[in-house]
Amino acid sequence: MPRVVYPGSFDPVTNGHMNIIERCAPRFDQVVVAVLLNLDKSPLFSAEERMEMLRACCRHLPNVEVDGFSGLLVDYVRERQADFIVKGLRAISDFEFELQQALMNRQLAPDVDTLFMMTDAEYSFLSSRIVKEIVRLGGPVAHMVPALVEEQLRRKLRSEG
Amino acid sequence: MPRVVYPGSFDPVTNGHMNIIERCAPRFDQVVVAVLLNLDKSPLFSAEERMEMLRACCRHLPNVEVDGFSGLLVDYVRERQADFIVKGLRAISDFEFELQQALMNRQLAPDVDTLFMMTDAEYSFLSSRIVKEIVRLGGPVAHMVPALVEEQLRRKLRSEG
Amino acid sequence: MPRVVYPGSFDPVTNGHMNIIERCAPRFDQVVVAVLLNLDKSPLFSAEERMEMLRACCRHLPNVEVDGFSGLLVDYVRERQADFIVKGLRAISDFEFELQQALMNRQLAPDVDTLFMMTDAEYSFLSSRIVKEIVRLGGPVAHMVPALVEEQLRRKLRSEG
Amino acid sequence: MPRVVYPGSFDPVTNGHMNIIERCAPRFDQVVVAVLLNLDKSPLFSAEERMEMLRACCRHLPNVEVDGFSGLLVDYVRERQADFIVKGLRAISDFEFELQQALMNRQLAPDVDTLFMMTDAEYSFLSSRIVKEIVRLGGPVAHMVPALVEEQLRRKLRSEG
Amino acid sequence: MPRVVYPGSFDPVTNGHMNIIERCAPRFDQVVVAVLLNLDKSPLFSAEERMEMLRACCRHLPNVEVDGFSGLLVDYVRERQADFIVKGLRAISDFEFELQQALMNRQLAPDVDTLFMMTDAEYSFLSSRIVKEIVRLGGPVAHMVPALVEEQLRRKLRSEG
Amino acid sequence: MPRVVYPGSFDPVTNGHMNIIERCAPRFDQVVVAVLLNLDKSPLFSAEERMEMLRACCRHLPNVEVDGFSGLLVDYVRERQADFIVKGLRAISDFEFELQQALMNRQLAPDVDTLFMMTDAEYSFLSSRIVKEIVRLGGPVAHMVPALVEEQLRRKLRSEG
Repeated sequence: MPRVVYPGSFDPVTNGHMNIIERCAPRFDQVVVAVLLNLDKSPLFSAEERMEMLRACCRHLPNVEVDGFSGLLVDYVRERQADFIVKGLRAISDFEFELQQALMNRQLAPDVDTLFMMTDAEYSFLSSRIVKEIVRLGGPVAHMVPALVEEQLRRKLRSEG
Repeated sequence: MPRVVYPGSFDPVTNGHMNIIERCAPRFDQVVVAVLLNLDKSPLFSAEERMEMLRACCRHLPNVEVDGFSGLLVDYVRERQADFIVKGLRAISDFEFELQQALMNRQLAPDVDTLFMMTDAEYSFLSSRIVKEIVRLGGPVAHMVPALVEEQLRRKLRSEG
Repeated sequence: MPRVVYPGSFDPVTNGHMNIIERCAPRFDQVVVAVLLNLDKSPLFSAEERMEMLRACCRHLPNVEVDGFSGLLVDYVRERQADFIVKGLRAISDFEFELQQALMNRQLAPDVDTLFMMTDAEYSFLSSRIVKEIVRLGGPVAHMVPALVEEQLRRKLRSEG
Repeated sequence: MPRVVYPGSFDPVTNGHMNIIERCAPRFDQVVVAVLLNLDKSPLFSAEERMEMLRACCRHLPNVEVDGFSGLLVDYVRERQADFIVKGLRAISDFEFELQQALMNRQLAPDVDTLFMMTDAEYSFLSSRIVKEIVRLGGPVAHMVPALVEEQLRRKLRSEG
Repeated sequence: MPRVVYPGSFDPVTNGHMNIIERCAPRFDQVVVAVLLNLDKSPLFSAEERMEMLRACCRHLPNVEVDGFSGLLVDYVRERQADFIVKGLRAISDFEFELQQALMNRQLAPDVDTLFMMTDAEYSFLSSRIVKEIVRLGGPVAHMVPALVEEQLRRKLRSEG
Repeated sequence: MPRVVYPGSFDPVTNGHMNIIERCAPRFDQVVVAVLLNLDKSPLFSAEERMEMLRACCRHLPNVEVDGFSGLLVDYVRERQADFIVKGLRAISDFEFELQQALMNRQLAPDVDTLFMMTDAEYSFLSSRIVKEIVRLGGPVAHMVPALVEEQLRRKLRSEG
């Protein structure tokens, strides 16, 4: 029965990410949300904070597990004995980047395969980066992230400012 | 356990289609290859011929079933109680068209979801249309379609010419 | 005070078209919805039917006028003494086509300029072509076109079938 | 009568920006060129210098006002009681980014709308970044920026080097 | 010394085509303009007319030869012992189509290679299809095609009408 | 007889770069591989190291010369009396960037022209950046770079770590 890995930075999780997770949960046996521990750019939230927010947001989905990983994604997928990587696609620029990553992963590990889902239209402009920018400029993000994430964002940016 | 529907015209099936089918078969419970019976443009091969070629090409994959459908794809998917539609993506132009179709299907049937797979790089230029064009111009298609499809193509186009 | 021309085939008008018209009406002095009379492909609805449906759908917008045109769009725009052409953009493929048209029109008539609006996300997959296809396959289009257009579509396609 | 806001970094203004401003000025009641005061990356020119150059370049356009803004663009647009945001589109990558921004702004402020204009073909490769790069490498930019901007660029980069 | 083949339908030749030919002529040993004899859609001009117009337009370029071909392009290129195919790129949609053709040709004939040139910005919207459409609608095409082609277009479309 | 310049950062050279060089060498008189000396971001390998690796990889191609350059590319091309710049295209995002560069170069130096080649499908995901990332994460790059480059990458990153 298929187990899928949904990898990302999740700095922080948005409603767009939740849209993908909630569409996968009822149809796959297990969904492992895999948080990239070491980011190139320093994240707003620590790995622990990013994972905690995800766990709180996925509490209602019993077959969703939140985990962290470092190193090559394909090595992690093999170690977890998952059947597929799942990625969301919002736009052309996502498509090009993800096509490149998928072809690279096929060469690194022909046994690991990637499935893509189109993010629903209403989330097509959403990204963690945009959410952080709006909060920094004092704008509302209530419809873009889960309530507890909005709270954490405001607290974090208050302590920053 | 997930059952997926892989729809298309398959006029005729190419190695690019087989690439998707062979990557799905080992990881999903059942793969239904669903041949669109009534095409807008008149096809080179009849629905029966297209399905027969597919069946011959999928003989080694016991959990792959070849079937025909007409009407709305989402109605067929529900009737077959499948969990997902699977589509291949080769290029940006595919992406735009498939994004449009996926968003339309989400509105028509929120319970039906679509998974996309990137066609492997070596098949990224392949399409049924290109294969037919090359055969008509007398060129070789041995690396583009299964052997039995090449044979059928030559027979069909000889009888045409 | 700016007067804009919103040209198209409108075969038939969709909620995506109405989205553009309703965003223009309150902010421009006059909006001329210009129906292309002679289409390359034979339309489902006659020019008169297309204009009538538009007029019914725009009844609540007093500064919207529905008109027909043939010949070069830029000639019509000049004749109507309009300030801008308005076009909707849904996707990359729209963008490329419209960029080409806009550059062509700038060369044909440097005094005529084009403004583009992004169709709202929920209509980004909508087109007259898709609506007709869904109705032909027996699917629901209630959220895609105004109610009176849905009715006309069913009547037209019943008489066709 | 419509008032539009044309926002940007303008570090420095190029002939591509002037192309948009000069096409808007005769057809809208007022054009507010809104200079983003706080940039993510440190700009070559201070906000004051960027606004001064713009004012000098727009002296011949009496209904063009140069102003600065910080915070959310939609808040500024509301405060200025403008009818539209105006943006220039040069290429696909612009389109994707601007589509995302426009959809985000529609969610933040449904009453604020954005109009896009295609930059004329001869300016389609131009950007402030490219102009600065060429000047740094000792190349000519006479056809890419207004004369007074070229002068300021050379002075600034001489004092840098 | 490199000989290149520049293939196309040329129905009719435009200033965009001439832009590519005139940039190739001084730098390659020989440029063979190869007119596709049998088009899918019936052309406005016969193969003979298309070749004659090209010959007249290239009279000032002694190393440019106009020829016709049918069958697979790569077979023609080998027969002519040319070193490269040359294609013009105007836009993303060209790029996708030409990438597909180039990859297909690399598989059909690994010894034949394709070089691409970007059409100059001022011709980026031009195509034979657009020119014919404008002439049919009574618009000016003086800056889009050589003078003798404009004359032939008007004569042809007068006799049509 | 045409001489071409193939410019880049080559930090380090990949099999994708070698694919372009090896397709140019037999058909152009001379291929100058031009290493950009001063990069915006600090490179992993020094200019001298990058040029040395290229020279070793091109030893079997007698008409390929490896050189360094700084300043405007078009100035270097003129100085070397080359006929064309050659660039590789892998994807849409390359296309947009290279189109911009080519149009800029045409304005800076109308006598210098650029030829593009599509990177073969199997290298379409490859870039120097991806190779360095994989090596840093401990993955295999044997099929992505020449053997001697792989060795240098491991040595360099060992000394880094």
